[in-house]
Amino acid sequence: MFRRPVRFGDVDAARLVFFPRFLEYCHDALEALFAHLDGGYPRLTQERGVGIPTVRVECDFHAPLRYGDVARLEIDVLALGRASVTVRHTIRRDADGTACATVRHVFVTAALATLAPVPIPDDVRGLLSRHLAAAAGDA
Amino acid sequence: MFRRPVRFGDVDAARLVFFPRFLEYCHDALEALFAHLDGGYPRLTQERGVGIPTVRVECDFHAPLRYGDVARLEIDVLALGRASVTVRHTIRRDADGTACATVRHVFVTAALATLAPVPIPDDVRGLLSRHLAAAAGDA
Amino acid sequence: MFRRPVRFGDVDAARLVFFPRFLEYCHDALEALFAHLDGGYPRLTQERGVGIPTVRVECDFHAPLRYGDVARLEIDVLALGRASVTVRHTIRRDADGTACATVRHVFVTAALATLAPVPIPDDVRGLLSRHLAAAAGDA
Amino acid sequence: MFRRPVRFGDVDAARLVFFPRFLEYCHDALEALFAHLDGGYPRLTQERGVGIPTVRVECDFHAPLRYGDVARLEIDVLALGRASVTVRHTIRRDADGTACATVRHVFVTAALATLAPVPIPDDVRGLLSRHLAAAAGDA
Repeated sequence: MFRRPVRFGDVDAARLVFFPRFLEYCHDALEALFAHLDGGYPRLTQERGVGIPTVRVECDFHAPLRYGDVARLEIDVLALGRASVTVRHTIRRDADGTACATVRHVFVTAALATLAPVPIPDDVRGLLSRHLAAAAGDA
Repeated sequence: MFRRPVRFGDVDAARLVFFPRFLEYCHDALEALFAHLDGGYPRLTQERGVGIPTVRVECDFHAPLRYGDVARLEIDVLALGRASVTVRHTIRRDADGTACATVRHVFVTAALATLAPVPIPDDVRGLLSRHLAAAAGDA
Repeated sequence: MFRRPVRFGDVDAARLVFFPRFLEYCHDALEALFAHLDGGYPRLTQERGVGIPTVRVECDFHAPLRYGDVARLEIDVLALGRASVTVRHTIRRDADGTACATVRHVFVTAALATLAPVPIPDDVRGLLSRHLAAAAGDA
Repeated sequence: MFRRPVRFGDVDAARLVFFPRFLEYCHDALEALFAHLDGGYPRLTQERGVGIPTVRVECDFHAPLRYGDVARLEIDVLALGRASVTVRHTIRRDADGTACATVRHVFVTAALATLAPVPIPDDVRGLLSRHLAAAAGDA
C-alpha cells in the first residue's frame, strides 16, 4: 500500500491528473515496494546494475483524480517468469476508495549496461513472491 | 508526423527516456494534430469545453530512446465511434526509423464540466477521418 | 521539515537531479507546510480561491542530489508583508546533511480568479508566523 | 529565439504554467542554442563529458502563461568567465510580446565525471560570444 497526495503540478489544463502521471505514480509505488530490498531500488539499479525496463502496460482509466485527492496504490504480482514480471497496480482515490485506474504492467529484469534480460535476482523474486495475487485466475 | 527531441530532463536514472514520458509524447503529438482545428486543442478544451479523457492505453515498448535521440510520432486512427476514438501512436527513433513503442490509445470526447461523453464534434471527426488507417484490419 | 526521496524520473541525462525539480521540491514542501491549514492548500486554492503566485526566486546550488538520495527541506519565513511572503528553503541531502541548495522565494497571496493580491488570510499568517526565522538579520 | 507552445501538462491546479516549468523552458532554449554546436548538447555532455551545472538562478515573474499560449524565449549572454557563464532568459507570451519572466542564470562548464569546472570549450565560447548582450551595462 502506497499513498501519495496529488501534487499541484500533477494536473493538466482540464484540472484532472494528467494521465501519464498515473504511470509515474505506479513507478513511485514500485520504488516504495523495492525499498524493502537491501539498498532499495537505487542500489539495485546503480550498484548491482539491474533495472526493470517496461515491456508493456495496459491502463484502464475509470475515474479522475484531482488536486486535493490522495492516490492510494496497491500492487499485486500476477506472474513471475524467469526474467519477466507482471504486476497489477490498482490506483484508488484514498478518501472513498474509488478505483480510478487499473494498470497491468509487464517488466523484465535486465542488465542496464546492455538491456539484456537477466534472471530475476533472488531477493527481488522473494519480495515479489510475497505480493502474488491470491489466485492464479486473478489476472 | 510529429518530431520532438528527447529533452535533457526526459530520461531517468537508467539514462533511458522514463517510460511515462512516452505517453506525454503521444499527447504532444495529439495536440500537434489538433492544431489543425480552428483554435486548436486549447480552444476545444477551454472555449468549447470539450476534452478527450483517456479511457484506455496499451503500450508496447520495443527499444529505448535516449538523450540525443529525436522521437518521431505518427498517429493512425483505428476506430471512430459516436464519442469514442481509438488511435495508434507509433514512436520511432528518427535517425534510423527504429520503432521504439506502439501505443493503442482510446479516448472519448467529453464535456469537461461533467466528463459526460458528447458526440465527436464535426470538425474533430473530419480531422480524424483523414488519418484513418488504410485498412480496417490494420488494428 | 519535509523529506522526499529523489524519484527515478527526477534526474537528467547527467544523472543529477534536474535543477528545475528543486523548485518542485520547494513547492512540495510548501504544500506540506500548508497541510496544517484546515483543508490544506487544496481548500485554500480551490474553495477559498486564494493562491500564492511566485513573484521571485533566487536559487543557489551548492551540491548535487542524485538518485538514491533523500531530500530534506526546511522552510524559514524571512518576511511577512500585507500580501507578500518571503521564505527561505534549505534543501539538504538527508543522509549527511549537506546543503545542496538554498532558495529565497517571494510569493504573494492573490485571488486566483484575477491574480490580484489579497491580504494574507489570518490562518495563513498565523501558520507562517510560527516559522519566522529567529533573527531579523537571518536573511 | 526559441518558441514552444505551453503543453497540456505544463499548467498547475491554478491553471497557470507551474513556475518550475519556466526553468525547464529556459533549459530547452539553451539546448536549442547549443544545437548550433557540432553534435549539439547531447554530444557535449555524453561524448565530450562536459556539462553546464547551474550555480545560481534569479527569476522574476511578471505575468502568467496559460495553456494555449506559446512561450518565446530569448537568451542574452551577460558575462563569460573562464568556466562561468551568465545569461539572461527573457520569456514572453508570443502572441503579444508580454514579458512573463526574466531569468538570470549562472552556470559553469564542468567535467560531468567529477563536476570540477573546466575552461569553457572554444566552440562553446564562440557560440556564446555571438549572443553577448550589446552593452556591458546591460545586465
